[in-house]
Amino acid sequence: MTTRIDGRAPDELRPVHLATNVLDFAEGSCLVEFGRTRVLCAASVEDRQPPFLRNTQSGWVTAEYAMLPRATHTRSQREVERGRPGGRTQEIQRLIGRSLRGVVDLELLGPRTITLDCDVIQADGGTRTASITGAYVALRLAIRKLAAAGLVSEACILSPVAAVSVGIVGGVPMLDLCYEEDSTAEVDFNVVMTGEDAFVEVQGTAEGKPFSRAAMDALLDLARHGIGQLFAKQQEALAAAQPT
Amino acid sequence: MTTRIDGRAPDELRPVHLATNVLDFAEGSCLVEFGRTRVLCAASVEDRQPPFLRNTQSGWVTAEYAMLPRATHTRSQREVERGRPGGRTQEIQRLIGRSLRGVVDLELLGPRTITLDCDVIQADGGTRTASITGAYVALRLAIRKLAAAGLVSEACILSPVAAVSVGIVGGVPMLDLCYEEDSTAEVDFNVVMTGEDAFVEVQGTAEGKPFSRAAMDALLDLARHGIGQLFAKQQEALAAAQPT
Amino acid sequence: MTTRIDGRAPDELRPVHLATNVLDFAEGSCLVEFGRTRVLCAASVEDRQPPFLRNTQSGWVTAEYAMLPRATHTRSQREVERGRPGGRTQEIQRLIGRSLRGVVDLELLGPRTITLDCDVIQADGGTRTASITGAYVALRLAIRKLAAAGLVSEACILSPVAAVSVGIVGGVPMLDLCYEEDSTAEVDFNVVMTGEDAFVEVQGTAEGKPFSRAAMDALLDLARHGIGQLFAKQQEALAAAQPT
Amino acid sequence: MTTRIDGRAPDELRPVHLATNVLDFAEGSCLVEFGRTRVLCAASVEDRQPPFLRNTQSGWVTAEYAMLPRATHTRSQREVERGRPGGRTQEIQRLIGRSLRGVVDLELLGPRTITLDCDVIQADGGTRTASITGAYVALRLAIRKLAAAGLVSEACILSPVAAVSVGIVGGVPMLDLCYEEDSTAEVDFNVVMTGEDAFVEVQGTAEGKPFSRAAMDALLDLARHGIGQLFAKQQEALAAAQPT
Amino acid sequence: MTTRIDGRAPDELRPVHLATNVLDFAEGSCLVEFGRTRVLCAASVEDRQPPFLRNTQSGWVTAEYAMLPRATHTRSQREVERGRPGGRTQEIQRLIGRSLRGVVDLELLGPRTITLDCDVIQADGGTRTASITGAYVALRLAIRKLAAAGLVSEACILSPVAAVSVGIVGGVPMLDLCYEEDSTAEVDFNVVMTGEDAFVEVQGTAEGKPFSRAAMDALLDLARHGIGQLFAKQQEALAAAQPT
Amino acid sequence: MTTRIDGRAPDELRPVHLATNVLDFAEGSCLVEFGRTRVLCAASVEDRQPPFLRNTQSGWVTAEYAMLPRATHTRSQREVERGRPGGRTQEIQRLIGRSLRGVVDLELLGPRTITLDCDVIQADGGTRTASITGAYVALRLAIRKLAAAGLVSEACILSPVAAVSVGIVGGVPMLDLCYEEDSTAEVDFNVVMTGEDAFVEVQGTAEGKPFSRAAMDALLDLARHGIGQLFAKQQEALAAAQPT
Repeated sequence: MTTRIDGRAPDELRPVHLATNVLDFAEGSCLVEFGRTRVLCAASVEDRQPPFLRNTQSGWVTAEYAMLPRATHTRSQREVERGRPGGRTQEIQRLIGRSLRGVVDLELLGPRTITLDCDVIQADGGTRTASITGAYVALRLAIRKLAAAGLVSEACILSPVAAVSVGIVGGVPMLDLCYEEDSTAEVDFNVVMTGEDAFVEVQGTAEGKPFSRAAMDALLDLARHGIGQLFAKQQEALAAAQPT
Repeated sequence: MTTRIDGRAPDELRPVHLATNVLDFAEGSCLVEFGRTRVLCAASVEDRQPPFLRNTQSGWVTAEYAMLPRATHTRSQREVERGRPGGRTQEIQRLIGRSLRGVVDLELLGPRTITLDCDVIQADGGTRTASITGAYVALRLAIRKLAAAGLVSEACILSPVAAVSVGIVGGVPMLDLCYEEDSTAEVDFNVVMTGEDAFVEVQGTAEGKPFSRAAMDALLDLARHGIGQLFAKQQEALAAAQPT
Repeated sequence: MTTRIDGRAPDELRPVHLATNVLDFAEGSCLVEFGRTRVLCAASVEDRQPPFLRNTQSGWVTAEYAMLPRATHTRSQREVERGRPGGRTQEIQRLIGRSLRGVVDLELLGPRTITLDCDVIQADGGTRTASITGAYVALRLAIRKLAAAGLVSEACILSPVAAVSVGIVGGVPMLDLCYEEDSTAEVDFNVVMTGEDAFVEVQGTAEGKPFSRAAMDALLDLARHGIGQLFAKQQEALAAAQPT
Repeated sequence: MTTRIDGRAPDELRPVHLATNVLDFAEGSCLVEFGRTRVLCAASVEDRQPPFLRNTQSGWVTAEYAMLPRATHTRSQREVERGRPGGRTQEIQRLIGRSLRGVVDLELLGPRTITLDCDVIQADGGTRTASITGAYVALRLAIRKLAAAGLVSEACILSPVAAVSVGIVGGVPMLDLCYEEDSTAEVDFNVVMTGEDAFVEVQGTAEGKPFSRAAMDALLDLARHGIGQLFAKQQEALAAAQPT
Repeated sequence: MTTRIDGRAPDELRPVHLATNVLDFAEGSCLVEFGRTRVLCAASVEDRQPPFLRNTQSGWVTAEYAMLPRATHTRSQREVERGRPGGRTQEIQRLIGRSLRGVVDLELLGPRTITLDCDVIQADGGTRTASITGAYVALRLAIRKLAAAGLVSEACILSPVAAVSVGIVGGVPMLDLCYEEDSTAEVDFNVVMTGEDAFVEVQGTAEGKPFSRAAMDALLDLARHGIGQLFAKQQEALAAAQPT
Repeated sequence: MTTRIDGRAPDELRPVHLATNVLDFAEGSCLVEFGRTRVLCAASVEDRQPPFLRNTQSGWVTAEYAMLPRATHTRSQREVERGRPGGRTQEIQRLIGRSLRGVVDLELLGPRTITLDCDVIQADGGTRTASITGAYVALRLAIRKLAAAGLVSEACILSPVAAVSVGIVGGVPMLDLCYEEDSTAEVDFNVVMTGEDAFVEVQGTAEGKPFSRAAMDALLDLARHGIGQLFAKQQEALAAAQPT
């Protein structure tokens, strides 16, 4: 049987931790770790609507994503120094935003905006899927706080949402790729699912060579298996969370 | 049976045209039309390598994407006026570049860069998939020109590549969404495949509500059906192309 | 007698074509060709006024100009990648805007803005003068559409306007320079005239050596000769134009 | 006979002063005043060539132009705060650069760049023509300094160059418009001439209504009359200049 | 006893001149010279408040600072070409703004903004302290003009303010460093004081090696000595100032 | 006796923690806490020199500073979205860089650059002084790692360096201001000292009203008292640090 560079089985997640309410000022926050990947997720609630929702009662959920310069093995330049977020950054923050909105009833949320800031403290692969998984916890905690103040119903969150990467490395389908695996993967999928066994996003890319329908099916099975465990971790963390 | 707003059957492509070598200076070019969507694809060959390939013999294929301001129903501001390409633009041009690289042997291409400029003259949905389909033709024509000059082997292109959008609109899976369908779709997939029945990219998004595995399977079947017809159109256009 | 590199006589225009209403969404459009120079001109009507016209009943006409990256013999970088339109681009779009405003009664136009987007598909010299000539046609078609809807009077256009380049190449005054002539010209003029034999703009530059008053007079005669033919082409195209 | 708002005759310049070597560090400098318009022109010599002259022995002359925020009647925002020079600024600095290059033999100048910085201290119309007139003096002083050091021959300057604005205000052709005249002019010309009675640039614009060939001729006569006086002022200032 | 490179005693200011109302349009202006350092300070009064003062009756005083490209020994690139003011520029303009606000009663000033533009014509060390010293004069003149029109009370200025640099060069504490001294100083202080012998800002930096409390005390004494003389110069200039 | 809003005595620091080597990839790192203020400091070593040190054997130490958007009580916009670091950010990162360079022998460091990234996780006043205090620890750890590999001598660090804020709040001099104190302080000082009882930087600002020499003296005494305790904390943390 295949062993991975960090000793895991192909269908095994890295150790996952979700620390809740780690920030004093944010309405909800979560420090999520998938192995050495570490992302700080903060949920900020503001009583404003984006321009395109003016004159409605609907709310909005959006995300921003960034990496600290020394999150990576070697230092990366800050994007502010280049004057704009790079293409990868924008692609990721759009993905996180869509994934979260996929499980929120924006009408029930009411005329407010929740921003999920996902700042990568350390990057060892899977930062976008860890961000989605942690951002859900931060969002849920913020909604819980609003609900405790009688401002919204917790029912505005329709389901949990979590995400994981899967890929084919050396011909073997693997769950939750670390950086070294990711950089040699032939195929790379990011899969976002809800607690009701449905998909919010599926993004698969052939890095090396095109992949067959059968390979895709195997990867989606693996992702579903991992995401099930992430839902359990989220539930556990939320049950134990202390209010700020 | 469901009829679509433009009278098509759910599994029917819009009229597709691929006009070749429409530009006098580009090494290869193709004006692609999917219904009212019209994209001008130009392949430019330059004898330079991107910095990360220095000291190798490998080449590179990249893409840029933009929309003319009046491609759309109402005029959009030029991105140059905002000082940077938007997130959507960057996401699309990264997708086009990856899709094309997925069928090119960069070692065989040798130390040169081919840029595929995909400029949307008119946008009625599916601009990114039309871009990939047309850019392949422009790329092929440029390689043919290089090969005629004895500079590269045509074998550096490993397979054709084409792309189509599919989605679920009003509960019905449909092929090749026009703008009006796209803006009301519950689920939206962009699928990129090679001539060898394999996938280069699969990007599926739940716009409205999460989708099941079965729904995804139906959409992928539909995409494969449409892409088969696009390969035929590409082959026909390439067979008839006159050199510039 | 002097023959030019493309076989024309010194006082001969390149073949000029004006294709009308080539876009489905723009209120008016024109694809103009002066030889291999090809510019897509789109007129967009918006019910808004620029800030400096607030609290007046006056309208505005403005222009934007850009070149596709592979309009030129070798690929040029997109200006959006440099974060701002270059000096040449701004100079040209200001010229086009002033030229069109020179023949419009902005009071009669009423509180709306018409933007003329001039996107150069292929550049072989004279793109700014082709843009003015084509933009007039697009503008006229847009006004015709507004007039048909009873929104403005066609009388808000006071006269046709057209433009041509003239220059001294190898000591010989020539009409409508192509790129190769333009790049070796000693003197280069862009002349914009109205249908009433008057000037809107005259911009003359000594590229190589200063020019005499007599040389200027010869060039202005040549320009007038060419612009007369352009007015005929415009009239013909407008007479034959089908509504969108 | 027409009297102007400041009491001048139509063919009369404002009081013109050219103060030389007003800066301690610049190789040449001139503070030029046309009435209340005041521009500080500094010539900087650098031993570098622009990229397009690499591998030649040719030099380059270029210009930059800016206005201090309170040069104008009411304060204007600094362009650095908007992140880029505006279109007007770029148009003007390109004009100044071309005008100066029109009288310099760049081969004789040798492999160096001279930058003429024209900073408008106070703006009351005609800043671009004052800039050209003053920049010539600064350039000449810098060349004189280089020549004194045996680095170039003064012969690299082929002729003096000066510029003036002319326009039609209330139907009357006038020389050297002040701001108030300029803002109500029907036609506005900027004319740049050499000491050999030849033109380097002619830029005429109909602000209000198109102009006839006869009107243009009258304006060019007026400009020539004014520029003759500017050449005398330049010669006088250069004769009296003390070295820095 | 130590002699300095320009022959001054260690506790001696350079020749200081304050020319008043040198601009025709600004509400107040002052051209300040500390030796070869020359800064043009213009005060502009606008009837608007910054956003954070909305719904108050309070005014605001702010400053902008820039150097002409050839203020320096060798030419510096314009910051507008880099797209943003540099860190040094921002640091200095924030300092000037704070220093002026330190002596203004913003409530008494009323709902208006005064901007002090400090543009360095020539830089030979101490540009920020010269700017503060000259900006005070320009501000005072603008307030005098407003007061003459009955719009504000001169009492809104609570005290004069002036500034000087001091530093340790070759082990010797010195007053008012010129550029050459500044660039070799071990310690560099900028001190801003009011006419009531109090401090608005003290900024001390060890350029070479850390400094003792005793050294700081000596430098502050020296600064106080110099600033006393600057107050006398300001008073004299203001007494002699002619209205614009 | 005065009690502070958080119960501290006027001369009392907030609880200070310095967690070492909290990042896996950085050469040195420190998470510093001053009460609720939390800054992650990472030291990155790169074998490159800034351009101005080319052709020398000298190294460089520089710093970058940023705040996470939800470090603050209410969310702040990311600076990358505005396209450039703000004035405050640049001022702070320049201060941190100078402070660290003040205790490093750059010749002994050799031809490499160490960048100290100070990212504020949570901001409750004193972020710049906490950054300096923590960055010193991160720097020291990085040097220790380089020294262990035989690349540099630990002697290139000449002394510890630490910083604290002091200010006058309600007339009372106080040590280590929290955000609420800072925002109502009349006077605000940031003081940076070395282990040898000398100053690297002193920056004092009158926020409300100018301050006397005596007040400054009292504040500097308080700062020295606090910085002494910070040196003890640093030493303790460094003694206990485990290598990464």
